[in-house]
Amino acid sequence: DQTTPNCVIKVHDGTRDYNPKQMAIREKVFNTIIRCFKRHGAETIDTPVFELKETLTGKYGEDSKLIYDLKDQGGELLSLRYDLTVPFARYLAMNKITNIKRYHIAKVYRRDNPAMTRGRYREFYQCDFDIAGQYDAMIPDAECLKIVHEILNELDLGDFRIKVNDRRILDGMFAVCGVPDDKFRTICSTVDKLDKMSWEDVKKEMVNEKGLSEEAADQIGEYVSMQGGMDLAERLLQDHKMSQSKQACAGLSDIKLLFKYLQLFHVTDKVVFDLSLARGLDYYTGVIYEAVLTQASAVSAANEAQNCANAEESVSVGSVAGGGRYDGLVGMFDPKGRRVPCVGVSIGIERIFSIMEQKAEASPEKVRTTEVQIMVASAQKNLLEERLQLISELWNAGIKAEVMYKKNPKLLSQLQYCEEAGIPLVAILGEQELKDGVVKLRVVATREEVDISRADLISEIKRRTEA
Amino acid sequence: DQTTPNCVIKVHDGTRDYNPKQMAIREKVFNTIIRCFKRHGAETIDTPVFELKETLTGKYGEDSKLIYDLKDQGGELLSLRYDLTVPFARYLAMNKITNIKRYHIAKVYRRDNPAMTRGRYREFYQCDFDIAGQYDAMIPDAECLKIVHEILNELDLGDFRIKVNDRRILDGMFAVCGVPDDKFRTICSTVDKLDKMSWEDVKKEMVNEKGLSEEAADQIGEYVSMQGGMDLAERLLQDHKMSQSKQACAGLSDIKLLFKYLQLFHVTDKVVFDLSLARGLDYYTGVIYEAVLTQASAVSAANEAQNCANAEESVSVGSVAGGGRYDGLVGMFDPKGRRVPCVGVSIGIERIFSIMEQKAEASPEKVRTTEVQIMVASAQKNLLEERLQLISELWNAGIKAEVMYKKNPKLLSQLQYCEEAGIPLVAILGEQELKDGVVKLRVVATREEVDISRADLISEIKRRTEA
Repeated sequence: DQTTPNCVIKVHDGTRDYNPKQMAIREKVFNTIIRCFKRHGAETIDTPVFELKETLTGKYGEDSKLIYDLKDQGGELLSLRYDLTVPFARYLAMNKITNIKRYHIAKVYRRDNPAMTRGRYREFYQCDFDIAGQYDAMIPDAECLKIVHEILNELDLGDFRIKVNDRRILDGMFAVCGVPDDKFRTICSTVDKLDKMSWEDVKKEMVNEKGLSEEAADQIGEYVSMQGGMDLAERLLQDHKMSQSKQACAGLSDIKLLFKYLQLFHVTDKVVFDLSLARGLDYYTGVIYEAVLTQASAVSAANEAQNCANAEESVSVGSVAGGGRYDGLVGMFDPKGRRVPCVGVSIGIERIFSIMEQKAEASPEKVRTTEVQIMVASAQKNLLEERLQLISELWNAGIKAEVMYKKNPKLLSQLQYCEEAGIPLVAILGEQELKDGVVKLRVVATREEVDISRADLISEIKRRTEA
Repeated sequence: DQTTPNCVIKVHDGTRDYNPKQMAIREKVFNTIIRCFKRHGAETIDTPVFELKETLTGKYGEDSKLIYDLKDQGGELLSLRYDLTVPFARYLAMNKITNIKRYHIAKVYRRDNPAMTRGRYREFYQCDFDIAGQYDAMIPDAECLKIVHEILNELDLGDFRIKVNDRRILDGMFAVCGVPDDKFRTICSTVDKLDKMSWEDVKKEMVNEKGLSEEAADQIGEYVSMQGGMDLAERLLQDHKMSQSKQACAGLSDIKLLFKYLQLFHVTDKVVFDLSLARGLDYYTGVIYEAVLTQASAVSAANEAQNCANAEESVSVGSVAGGGRYDGLVGMFDPKGRRVPCVGVSIGIERIFSIMEQKAEASPEKVRTTEVQIMVASAQKNLLEERLQLISELWNAGIKAEVMYKKNPKLLSQLQYCEEAGIPLVAILGEQELKDGVVKLRVVATREEVDISRADLISEIKRRTEA
């Protein structure tokens, strides 16, 4: 029986439908990002939404508990992808690809606590750009930062900063501060909380929960408060403690080189070397970075959403892009452990969407959800056939056109539809026009009407709407 | 330890990665289809990849066993979407939308036996266009067929036919042939096999497996061999048996009206009223249609893939588009059972991909996977900084450009890269050029070289590559 209703109509918690208006905004953002990726010569690939469960095993540390598994219905054990980086590494190893520059835009899945007002969903898009291959140091890394700079500029989201650091600097720092080797990762993930927690609380977690000595914590505290540019990297290379770590020195030299290339790209104004940047994921091996919006308008929007008590004190609104170098991940999939060095960036598109949506809401201009140029209308009854014939001609000429699906629609309701949908032109057919071989072309905004011969109609529509 | 390799590197049976070449073809096909959908004024929406399990329950008849379920990890029971139509109906009911024309392009999931050489995957794209709303008969239905006609023409896949029929004609036919009411659906799904099985085998299934009388089967056999146009609909309206069914008559009158509108759209050359067309899905209530390729080249490709013994006898290569009217589906989700009449079409994109891929393989022209206009190269050593500075200028001017990620790449390897990737231009920097304030612009195809001043470079690149 087709009329028995279901009891609940909803989607899964933490997921959402996108309505046409949201899709129009999404399309605009994607186009900007894809244009940038293509400008930098990237190819694109696609991978299945699920991977074999074992492909994802051991890649995400503690976050593995957030992976969605499929039910065992006989056959292979599957999990929904958690990010696009591990599928990319699997793709490279499986196809023995050692050089590629690719972007991949697709949805990923995390069984996280949804916080949809803050733009945190369980199904969300990632826009990843990665460069794989054995190249000279920091050249592809610098290009990734240039890309972030271009995209955030073009999207016009307000002022931003790109923080950079290096896993080797963090590890070297932990070593010289007296953190035991086996505590590097867990201390690192505590440092990662510095953008949400005060140093006091971070220190407490290190000492009380992770069992670090107070002394070591204090030394870390000094370093992670440091921010600067190439000068800071130079100073730390001279630092009596830091310079004892070979790893840290390698990282610091690369940061210097990175800044040199970023100067050539004219993007150093937005880039800051920040020793508190840690980033959670296990697989990073070198440079890491994260872009945050700093503009007041974005701050207030984010604070409102985050229900933040000390709103005015906040300067950053969380990450809108992040990435880094992961030279070991592809080797994890290769039977012989062959390494393919990789560096990449992921654009945090969901947060960008919500900012763009807020901007659209605040703007007096209506978001159009179609690009229709003209409505084929009739002023009298019994002209359906003539309307269908005309619209068919327009479609065949590549004109975006609509007609009302009624035999005898009222002229007023046809015009109202155009106003609501933002359709700029109406072709009005009437007995007289048909006799004269013309169409009355009406400009919706000005209500101006002019008779156009059927032969000139298409070029006239193009002239008026394809500016 | 990041060097421990996994044992198996593969993707789930019946799914695949798309490499950059396949993605380039896919993008071209999608662009053609989306352009058509937009020309007809469609908005787009998106829905989550999984739905609550209960949303999909009872919508697909026997095919329900092919639904992928997620594991119960606490929380809601979820299934991967099986098509885009049921999520669309759920979306309409949930948001109380009674009028919309939307397209949706996304992947769907079926635990079917994969037959990847025949383009049958477990994860595959659907491209759906649907019109929801209470409108005058057959106007939106005719537009759906016009869309199929436009898309198949534009994709240039060879000759095609669009078969149309109506669920009410099928049901009426079953009634007047003496099929018991409770056997309509199962007999209908047997009729649906006529494109793959001979009438003899279909009849056997009806009589031996489904328990239909031989007499009734023979009567059905007569009808389902009929093909024609508006004339056939008129003849059947006079048919002494068929005309006894009110349902059949309603369907036949609508087929007549449909052909009238299709004549105005000039597409009747490809459309055939075919009483053997059944289509499996439960939810259709009115007009149904299916487009098949008939061209020899496509036939041979498909036959090869299908390992078909009687290759030369085959005329159709299976469906590349299909759809119909489903007036009851939205009501299944509405608590009050309110109906929203819908009609739509789904483009069988996977089969189209594989035909386009075969065409690309056969063509002497290489498929480009990027749109890069120029490579910034150097003729001597130690010019990395100059290359980075120049490419940064080009990127900022919107030029698609690449540079090799080496401090001192050989000129030859830079030129070879261009040849392989199909990059048409090279900007060559050398000591002399830098002194003179020029760039040597090389046309890869002709090896022509010309000095261009730095001030004119961007406009010159655009002139030569943005034809």
